[in-house]
Amino acid sequence: MPEQPELTIQGWGPGSSRVATVADAPGEAEGSLELTRDPDLAAALPRAARRHLAKELGWTPRPTPAVRVGDIRLAPSRLPGEARAAMTALLGEEHVATDELSRLRRTGGKSYLDLLRRREGDASDAPDAVVSPGDTAETAALLALCAEHGVVVVPFGGGTSVVGGLSGTDPDDRPAIALDLRRMAGIRDLDVPSSLVTVGPGMRGPALEEALGADGLTLGHLPQSWEFATLGGYAATRSSGQASTGIGRFDDLVAGLTLATPTGVLELGHPPASAAGPDLLGLALGSEGALGVITELRLRVRPKPRTTRYEGWSFRSWAAGLAGLQRLARHELLPDVVRLSDPDETRANLLMAGGTGARALRGALRARGHGEGCLLVVGWEGLPPLVRARRRAAASVLREGGAVRAGRRVGESWRRHRFEAPYLRDRLMDSGLLVETLETAATWSALPVVYDAVRRALGRSLTRAGRRPLVMSHVSHGYPTGASLYVTVLADRDDDLPIQQWLAAKREATDALLAAGGTLTHHHAVGADHRPWLEREVGPLGVEVLRAVKQRLDPAGICNPGVLLPD
Amino acid sequence: MPEQPELTIQGWGPGSSRVATVADAPGEAEGSLELTRDPDLAAALPRAARRHLAKELGWTPRPTPAVRVGDIRLAPSRLPGEARAAMTALLGEEHVATDELSRLRRTGGKSYLDLLRRREGDASDAPDAVVSPGDTAETAALLALCAEHGVVVVPFGGGTSVVGGLSGTDPDDRPAIALDLRRMAGIRDLDVPSSLVTVGPGMRGPALEEALGADGLTLGHLPQSWEFATLGGYAATRSSGQASTGIGRFDDLVAGLTLATPTGVLELGHPPASAAGPDLLGLALGSEGALGVITELRLRVRPKPRTTRYEGWSFRSWAAGLAGLQRLARHELLPDVVRLSDPDETRANLLMAGGTGARALRGALRARGHGEGCLLVVGWEGLPPLVRARRRAAASVLREGGAVRAGRRVGESWRRHRFEAPYLRDRLMDSGLLVETLETAATWSALPVVYDAVRRALGRSLTRAGRRPLVMSHVSHGYPTGASLYVTVLADRDDDLPIQQWLAAKREATDALLAAGGTLTHHHAVGADHRPWLEREVGPLGVEVLRAVKQRLDPAGICNPGVLLPD
Repeated sequence: MPEQPELTIQGWGPGSSRVATVADAPGEAEGSLELTRDPDLAAALPRAARRHLAKELGWTPRPTPAVRVGDIRLAPSRLPGEARAAMTALLGEEHVATDELSRLRRTGGKSYLDLLRRREGDASDAPDAVVSPGDTAETAALLALCAEHGVVVVPFGGGTSVVGGLSGTDPDDRPAIALDLRRMAGIRDLDVPSSLVTVGPGMRGPALEEALGADGLTLGHLPQSWEFATLGGYAATRSSGQASTGIGRFDDLVAGLTLATPTGVLELGHPPASAAGPDLLGLALGSEGALGVITELRLRVRPKPRTTRYEGWSFRSWAAGLAGLQRLARHELLPDVVRLSDPDETRANLLMAGGTGARALRGALRARGHGEGCLLVVGWEGLPPLVRARRRAAASVLREGGAVRAGRRVGESWRRHRFEAPYLRDRLMDSGLLVETLETAATWSALPVVYDAVRRALGRSLTRAGRRPLVMSHVSHGYPTGASLYVTVLADRDDDLPIQQWLAAKREATDALLAAGGTLTHHHAVGADHRPWLEREVGPLGVEVLRAVKQRLDPAGICNPGVLLPD
Repeated sequence: MPEQPELTIQGWGPGSSRVATVADAPGEAEGSLELTRDPDLAAALPRAARRHLAKELGWTPRPTPAVRVGDIRLAPSRLPGEARAAMTALLGEEHVATDELSRLRRTGGKSYLDLLRRREGDASDAPDAVVSPGDTAETAALLALCAEHGVVVVPFGGGTSVVGGLSGTDPDDRPAIALDLRRMAGIRDLDVPSSLVTVGPGMRGPALEEALGADGLTLGHLPQSWEFATLGGYAATRSSGQASTGIGRFDDLVAGLTLATPTGVLELGHPPASAAGPDLLGLALGSEGALGVITELRLRVRPKPRTTRYEGWSFRSWAAGLAGLQRLARHELLPDVVRLSDPDETRANLLMAGGTGARALRGALRARGHGEGCLLVVGWEGLPPLVRARRRAAASVLREGGAVRAGRRVGESWRRHRFEAPYLRDRLMDSGLLVETLETAATWSALPVVYDAVRRALGRSLTRAGRRPLVMSHVSHGYPTGASLYVTVLADRDDDLPIQQWLAAKREATDALLAAGGTLTHHHAVGADHRPWLEREVGPLGVEVLRAVKQRLDPAGICNPGVLLPD
């Protein structure tokens, strides 16, 4: 099994100083990914893009470096001796760690707030121990043991949460362990005729794709966190990959799973489909560690696509772009990958791309009256004759909607750089910027309203004394009934109160998107950050139903108590 | 809104004696359906088919008529006067009925056991009243009122359950009402850009299709019960339509719903998709009235297909047929409708079809060595160039698997007759036959084992003194990871103990299919008939989770207590 590099403690990327060798993404025909991981902002961002940002934001680039890792403050472990002894007896000394580095590596996730804290030297939310069970039975026994000893359990997969999924606060302030899933990271069964693979939850996408590739198969789930996130994490957070329009959401790929809880083990899902009562598998998906720990997954795989084709299109306006996608969706002609950037994101992307190609494209689009337009990246995958037929039919719908082709380079360039944004974020944070994302989804009817509401709210909250945010949005996932909206925000950081600055903006944006008809989150989960709004999403009685389920499975409330459910 | 005919009390079809005018099924290009509804077996079944059955089963056709409806025994209503007064105050006198005919019409469903009881004159499971709220608020108030007065509530939509969904027994033997959904049967909203229609749960498919047709839209959900079943019933039982391989299961079509419970109202689902915690919508789907009453549904619609194409193929054997479907599934080339009959069903279907066309086809198949083969019906729907590309690619996979074309007539004939089986059942029951169906689903790897196990179990249980059953199976729904299996059983009826005869066979078949890896039910739900096995499907802790949810929503246990959850 390929080695799984750990994430760096204060940002994105492999924890060692060398540049990682990333396993090829599935469908990546040749060469390895050339990721923009230069530690220097000047190298990471072309000059025109830096100027554009400085002007748009009223931002003065300035060094705002992180403290040294050695200076990060960590409280001593509070794990009670009795609990530790019981864990050691169960799992062996080597699988119960309380050293500072182990704990620090499992502290929090990778949201802007997580990174701000770690960069400031604050790891007060570190777990008191890192404990690694080896299978379902050990996990169930560990959970029962923690319930008995009053120890909180936070499952740790890749540590890539951007919604505080690992940063919850226990209302009773009990000692906490990170339940590390890395020992459950292999393929346990491959049923080729049924297109099903059974895996451990700690496995990551690159390792799985490499193993499946030998049989000509792929999972095809490619979120931006793909290099580091785990399969169990995808299930626990209801992830959605970049090709989800074609491949489906991660939910759709889970045929079954095992959930170890403090009161027993659930085996859920019966592929290919069942009508035997309510869907309990759907209760485990998105449970974020609050109901138990996913210890095994049965996932749908498929043959590697015989052909892939990525290309760009341009619309004259955001409204025209949304209307074009909606028409594709209505006729079930959406490509496997669909990504429509709004004018602000289109402009920034073209500037960031730099080079003569991007300049030429900007010129060509201006000449056709698309100077303030929207770029659409589409990707097609599958059997050649079907891809051909779908592409042709979609092209005619796109043209009817006023779109013009922007070429294959736009598509291929997006594909080549698709895992880079979190690397770039570190460099932007080094230079005095607030940089964060949020996302939602809404019906085609509500989407324009949600878009306007979020932009207005962020603009209002983040504008101060000559400084204003740059809010860039794109549709990242299309469905017959609507689409997701992914929003990237850049602003000059408030160096005095950076956390409060973002909390206020996030609050206003979330209130606004819910009021406009958006969902609380399309693919990042609830975590600690969204839980105050869960009741608005599912209603007070919906929260009560979840509480009843939690009470049955986790009566001591030790399972990731600070996430998902509001206090 | 079109009139919704009520089902006849002792069998299938409209309750009046005239032959119904069925609204055209969507996609039905011309003419109306010619249903085989002749009350005479000789007219309903060709002579060759009758001979075949008599020989296969050791069956002597004999008249075994139902008692007259007027002779059906019904206990007096036990609805307490106080409860009745409260209901009348809430809904008005005209929406609370206790007359015998109203109660008889809402007694039980349409399983073989239901029909046996009704044909024998037994309606001891009749509700004590039929109560019809007009909206969500009235339904919620009615449920709270019933909880207060200790009155059991069984939601009644179309009355088409074949798993005892309306025949549960309350362990506390409390008075019970049928909560009739017919007053909540209209379209409430149509959001064309988002492809979403909002409807009442009492609406039926034909009425919805007629209304959507005016906008060029269709729902496309076509189970065999389509003429009579309600949309709320589809959701409560996790139905699956004949074109589900293309259209999706009913689950996939529900973007949201409202569930009225004794403790409040849940608004579930957030289209197009959400990652905001576990999927509560999936808890309401398949809840079979045991958690509350579905009072509104938001459903995904789509444009009517521009082209439809139905055709037949033949495989030399069942194994070759399954392998062919599995290859189509693997490459995502499954048609929208896929229906592979085993040799026993193929032979019976060709005999039942009668006429020169069927004779010619039998001859042609024999000549090609497919005399004991399997017919496959496939249906393609959608945009012409895509249908063309998919058909071509699928044809080449089918031919590689040894399939030969059996022509369009086979496909069109299936389509014309697809709602007829339950009508024919009545005639067979009139003539001394046991006739019932059961269904399951399994992965492609497990499916052949499940198939053998079910056939063996039914053969063993229903063979006695020179008589043996005819067990006919088909795959009715294909998925990437597996398929459903639909089994029709015919046998000479045990005139002394007909109910016990079937209960024993059903028990053996269910034990066998679960042991072989099948699911308890693929699209008929749990009801009263399957609930002893629910624990084997979801485990004891899974049952406990469902109980915890029920306890929260329905603490008095008045919501359809005899179904879904085991005692």
